[in-house]
Amino acid sequence: MSRSPGRKQENHKISRELFVLTYGALVAQLCKDYEKDEDVNACLDSMGYSIGIRLIDDFLARSAVKKCRSYSETADMIAQVAFKMYLGVTPSVSCNSARGNEFSLILDKNPLVDFVEELPAERASLCYCNLLCGVIRGALEMVHLAAEVSFLQDRLKGDAVTEIGITFLRKPEDRKHRR
Amino acid sequence: MSRSPGRKQENHKISRELFVLTYGALVAQLCKDYEKDEDVNACLDSMGYSIGIRLIDDFLARSAVKKCRSYSETADMIAQVAFKMYLGVTPSVSCNSARGNEFSLILDKNPLVDFVEELPAERASLCYCNLLCGVIRGALEMVHLAAEVSFLQDRLKGDAVTEIGITFLRKPEDRKHRR
Repeated sequence: MSRSPGRKQENHKISRELFVLTYGALVAQLCKDYEKDEDVNACLDSMGYSIGIRLIDDFLARSAVKKCRSYSETADMIAQVAFKMYLGVTPSVSCNSARGNEFSLILDKNPLVDFVEELPAERASLCYCNLLCGVIRGALEMVHLAAEVSFLQDRLKGDAVTEIGITFLRKPEDRKHRR
Repeated sequence: MSRSPGRKQENHKISRELFVLTYGALVAQLCKDYEKDEDVNACLDSMGYSIGIRLIDDFLARSAVKKCRSYSETADMIAQVAFKMYLGVTPSVSCNSARGNEFSLILDKNPLVDFVEELPAERASLCYCNLLCGVIRGALEMVHLAAEVSFLQDRLKGDAVTEIGITFLRKPEDRKHRR
């Protein structure tokens, strides 16, 4: 894994606040468009998926990472390289299953909710940051890794941390046959 | 104007691609919601305004800029400090009127359209980046500067550059009385 901190890379960096507020406008618009939280969540996930399948090329080009050899390495890569690159934070990673295919990304601080105090009472089931789940799912799919990604805990809902669960759906052996 | 390039500031930086793609999802959603380009443009401007009136506090805190003494200084500040900080680009500035209240921010490259090839034929009147106009208008209003902000040229529409026009509506003398 190597990358040069040259000028090109610097130009890719922007301030987070504009993104956070723009994301807030997107969620607010979807809440106008859809009455049910589940529909907003599904829409955010779907949008994120479309973003993820495009973002993966950018990620592979700029991170210059090598192919991961295990789910564990993949989860670490998402947390330590991708989150760091795109959101400027590094979640901690834990493995949640003996099979070694379930992981949690744990965020003490979620950069996407900087300007959000709490969810309104009538939006208690909203997964405000569900776009992220879709992004991860879409990006993983483009490297031939099927996964379910969802929020397991959310500080916006009163949980102590924000936790994104990733369950990989196939064994690496299966993948080799598919490629 | 001084600021320390400390750790806090570094943490505010994120990668532009995720923002650009998320912004694209927002515009696409509004195009689903509204048939007329004018309505999409108005909605983007209005969202931008809401963002601008919140973003100005962040801008003033982090840039630590001094009060501008003229419209010209204000236009330079938007281009050289705000655009640089939030979008990682620095537009050139030109003054368009003898009265000294009309300016253009000229972008050779618009970072918000990285993934957009061209506007679809049925969306020929769409101001894809109209959110930016709203952001500038909202932020200026919070420092007691009324302004009209709109796109004068747009590379997405075949123009050679992207040009944002800012017309300040009151003289600085008026402002002093209003504060």
